[in-house]
Amino acid sequence: MPTPVWLVGTYDAEGKANIMAAAWAGICNSDPPCVQVSLRKARHTYKAITERKAFTISVPGEEYWSETDYAGMVSGRDADKFGETVFTPVKSELVDAPYVDECGMVMECRLRETVDLGSHVMVIGEILDVKVDEEALTDGAPDIQLLKPFIYSPGDNGYHALGMRIGDALAQKTPPE
Amino acid sequence: MPTPVWLVGTYDAEGKANIMAAAWAGICNSDPPCVQVSLRKARHTYKAITERKAFTISVPGEEYWSETDYAGMVSGRDADKFGETVFTPVKSELVDAPYVDECGMVMECRLRETVDLGSHVMVIGEILDVKVDEEALTDGAPDIQLLKPFIYSPGDNGYHALGMRIGDALAQKTPPE
Repeated sequence: MPTPVWLVGTYDAEGKANIMAAAWAGICNSDPPCVQVSLRKARHTYKAITERKAFTISVPGEEYWSETDYAGMVSGRDADKFGETVFTPVKSELVDAPYVDECGMVMECRLRETVDLGSHVMVIGEILDVKVDEEALTDGAPDIQLLKPFIYSPGDNGYHALGMRIGDALAQKTPPE
Repeated sequence: MPTPVWLVGTYDAEGKANIMAAAWAGICNSDPPCVQVSLRKARHTYKAITERKAFTISVPGEEYWSETDYAGMVSGRDADKFGETVFTPVKSELVDAPYVDECGMVMECRLRETVDLGSHVMVIGEILDVKVDEEALTDGAPDIQLLKPFIYSPGDNGYHALGMRIGDALAQKTPPE
């Protein structure tokens, strides 16, 4: 609360490219950089990640909220989510998984460990590379106001856009007045 | 990307209430409900959590972005962050940790496990209760547009507000046109 909305990209046992939407997810380590995504064990994506030891995270812009929602609603066992949506799979050159060409920011991850928590298994991946579209960079860094990721809110079961920039982080060295 | 900005509340060995800002954090399990927060091992808060086996997460509204930033910049070893800011500690009745009275949403957590990832240790806590201010509820559920949490973006090292609601989640059962 608020949670990110990410697309987890994998190849299944048959080599079919698949994506699922995930919100129980976040950055979890700086050195080496790692992400965590929690998945139900029955998920097609969970099986693919443990088999291929790899996944990608594609960060969709707000214009793709309905495609992203759909990617969380049906299983890759039953549907070809890339074929049915505007999303295009791109084979990663670093890990055995595809990412989404239409997403302005992508993280390519090698499976590092899993933690069984009950309903979900937390998958921890080491980020081998972060790719950002050139048009989403400002002064060489990813610009969140150009990438326009969106937020999931469990309380109202809704997606929410990003608002304006409100301040500099890691700047307040004395107590605010 | 985007990441939440949460205040982690603890009592240290001397019983002093402390908070620190964390962004490498998220929901990580549904049943039982759990959160994860990644902390550097040298952090005063990490020591307090492992000693007391408890912490709270207070979700600050955007009006508190500078106080929250300050809470991430100084250590509770050197500063009394509650005394120096407008934040007021409230002793949890469920776990051995304080939460922030000024935050509209609070999660009280019992330490469940830790995962050492390198620079950071991931602390996983089971959420024993979620408290939300009555004025931040709509139809009995937490309303993110009233709570107004904010986002941290590593790319521009900035805080960003929440924007408007863009759509219903878990609704798109067929591929979007």
